[in-house]
Amino acid sequence: MNEIDAAISLIRRGTDELLIEAELVEKLKSGRPLRVKAGFDPTAPDLHFGHTVLLNKLRHFQELDHHIMFLIGDFTGMIGDPSGKNSTRPPLSREQVLENARTYQEQVFKILDPGKTEICFNSSWMNELGAAGMIRLAAQQTVARMLEREDFARRYGNQQPISIHEFLYPLCQGYDSVAMKADVELGGTDQRFNLLMGRELQKHYGQSPQCLVMVPLLEGLDGVNKMSKSLGNYIGIAEPPREIFGKTMSISDTLMWRYYELLSLRSSAEIAALKTEVEAGRNPRDVKVQLALEFVERFHGKRAAEEALTDFEARFQKNALPDDIPETKIAVGDGMPLFQVMKQAGLTATTSEAVRMIEQGAVKLDGERVEDKGLVLKAGTRGVLQVGKRKFVAVVLL
Amino acid sequence: MNEIDAAISLIRRGTDELLIEAELVEKLKSGRPLRVKAGFDPTAPDLHFGHTVLLNKLRHFQELDHHIMFLIGDFTGMIGDPSGKNSTRPPLSREQVLENARTYQEQVFKILDPGKTEICFNSSWMNELGAAGMIRLAAQQTVARMLEREDFARRYGNQQPISIHEFLYPLCQGYDSVAMKADVELGGTDQRFNLLMGRELQKHYGQSPQCLVMVPLLEGLDGVNKMSKSLGNYIGIAEPPREIFGKTMSISDTLMWRYYELLSLRSSAEIAALKTEVEAGRNPRDVKVQLALEFVERFHGKRAAEEALTDFEARFQKNALPDDIPETKIAVGDGMPLFQVMKQAGLTATTSEAVRMIEQGAVKLDGERVEDKGLVLKAGTRGVLQVGKRKFVAVVLL
Repeated sequence: MNEIDAAISLIRRGTDELLIEAELVEKLKSGRPLRVKAGFDPTAPDLHFGHTVLLNKLRHFQELDHHIMFLIGDFTGMIGDPSGKNSTRPPLSREQVLENARTYQEQVFKILDPGKTEICFNSSWMNELGAAGMIRLAAQQTVARMLEREDFARRYGNQQPISIHEFLYPLCQGYDSVAMKADVELGGTDQRFNLLMGRELQKHYGQSPQCLVMVPLLEGLDGVNKMSKSLGNYIGIAEPPREIFGKTMSISDTLMWRYYELLSLRSSAEIAALKTEVEAGRNPRDVKVQLALEFVERFHGKRAAEEALTDFEARFQKNALPDDIPETKIAVGDGMPLFQVMKQAGLTATTSEAVRMIEQGAVKLDGERVEDKGLVLKAGTRGVLQVGKRKFVAVVLL
Repeated sequence: MNEIDAAISLIRRGTDELLIEAELVEKLKSGRPLRVKAGFDPTAPDLHFGHTVLLNKLRHFQELDHHIMFLIGDFTGMIGDPSGKNSTRPPLSREQVLENARTYQEQVFKILDPGKTEICFNSSWMNELGAAGMIRLAAQQTVARMLEREDFARRYGNQQPISIHEFLYPLCQGYDSVAMKADVELGGTDQRFNLLMGRELQKHYGQSPQCLVMVPLLEGLDGVNKMSKSLGNYIGIAEPPREIFGKTMSISDTLMWRYYELLSLRSSAEIAALKTEVEAGRNPRDVKVQLALEFVERFHGKRAAEEALTDFEARFQKNALPDDIPETKIAVGDGMPLFQVMKQAGLTATTSEAVRMIEQGAVKLDGERVEDKGLVLKAGTRGVLQVGKRKFVAVVLL
């Protein structure tokens, strides 16, 4: 395999779509460092593993010695939701944006090499564009083309309002690529339309159009839904070592391989070797431990990883969990008291019995004695509930 | 009739639509000078009578002691046609805009009182708005609402492209009303949608919405099509006295009353009196002479008007035109040689006969001997063709 093939192979790893490979090959052949763009929303600097799929892909480009541009979309962030309908998107001040940018950097530089990463703010060119520039930009696309975007088409068809400024945002994102002279833009598959806008605008501005690398949306701990804060099925980058370790150990074996592909920094060859070992009889739990160790080490260092492993093993041995714990999924809406979860999981016959067991100190959640009989569990909680010495249920709260 | 009723009556004169009269009455009752806006395109300062319908209406407001704001849309003028499709709309420089504004003022101050007219340039607030302000503005309207505009609806339905910036222009025009705190906006009936946008945006910005006064599109000399340069059926403000006088004299009696209503500065009472006189037997040509005199006097002064009349009468007497000259309409496409017009008008049997008559000096157009046998006449030409002593045809070239 020659150098270009190797690069393409690394870039392709885990991606949903690569547009257009032939063009990317040409760019790679030039030998110059490519300008690789990825945009981030400045309103949500509290990252979870779902976000790191993209960061890992940036790291792949960094390993290939390309120039990474981490774009913070402060221009639109400082506008907020101009229709005023979305109160969760208030306009950010310059100070808030900078503060969020700092938080971002702290987090992403656990994956990216700060020395090789350029942080960009699109306000620097968008403000300069002015109202007239915005009009010129808007002249580059048609209403019909914009209504091709899936969500716009659906909303227009359903007679749901689309504000005109929503048509301007893809254009702004595309113009970022022009201003940054991007060779490659990375994004989620849900960004396909907006990423293509960058290509079209670059052509209009006489630039060679960027190649697009689209990464999948990461599945959450449940292995089904996309990882998100609101579903509670996430691992946060800033979570303590024990949480990251435990949550990683809770995923299915199938999902483990998916996380290896998308989140691990191990080479594809190493991962293939691990798979072969498991097929040959190695306990997948050992391989999952390796993954959990890697995650904790990345975000908290080697020592924390070792401690998390020791702690995890101690809890397992102390609690001597049986190998065949039954699993129960319970829909808990906005949250459900533990005693009710216990009844629904069949651990007690009634809720009052459940309360009594908690009061007697006979109830453990993931090996920890529960002290609070009013404890409310939220959707997204996963863990082993133990009542007395022998009753175990692995609960998954939805 | 009380003062408010009199004002409403003057404002209503010749207008197609007044929105909303009850609101306008309230504004008038306040007794303060109303802020009256009318916008003009800075690319076409060479005005014809069609443009003066609006200027006359502004003058009515001026006579009622309101504050006239003559808005020059230099912001969009300096953008030109950003899609690059319309080469007749190149971006104007700041200098060109100012030069055009000067030309405008020279022309419009023949109708408006310069001491009571504020000249505004929308670049002053539009540039300040910036790209972010433009996005906020665009958030105030929906795609569906914009596609209600007749021409957008038609083009979208016919799958003709609509550039996104075309959605921004009505918003810009509406925002002008906000920035100018307009109480009233004047415009042609074709501007209805855009004028309404001003009302909607003013409401959003917490202002009392402007009232709309829509004036009709003026019919050209043919009495059928709208007056326009390209149709050649116009009287230009800057045309020489003789042209203005002669063209006015060429219109039909019906059109004469229309021009009295929309273009004359005479009061409605005076015009009604003239009508009564004609009904009682006065020659309408005398009344037309009054109108022609008023037009020439307005744009060239009293002396020029008198000279134009003398000249006109002299030509008529010298040529001793019969009273019953037959009229012929001829479609000439991009233009037609005079000899061919003559044949089609039945003045000669063949084109070669027509050429010979021209060579012999036997052909007059409006009393002037034609010297050039290759003379080409354009659409919009109207005049009396005379061959020899007795053959006359009034030709109207379409």
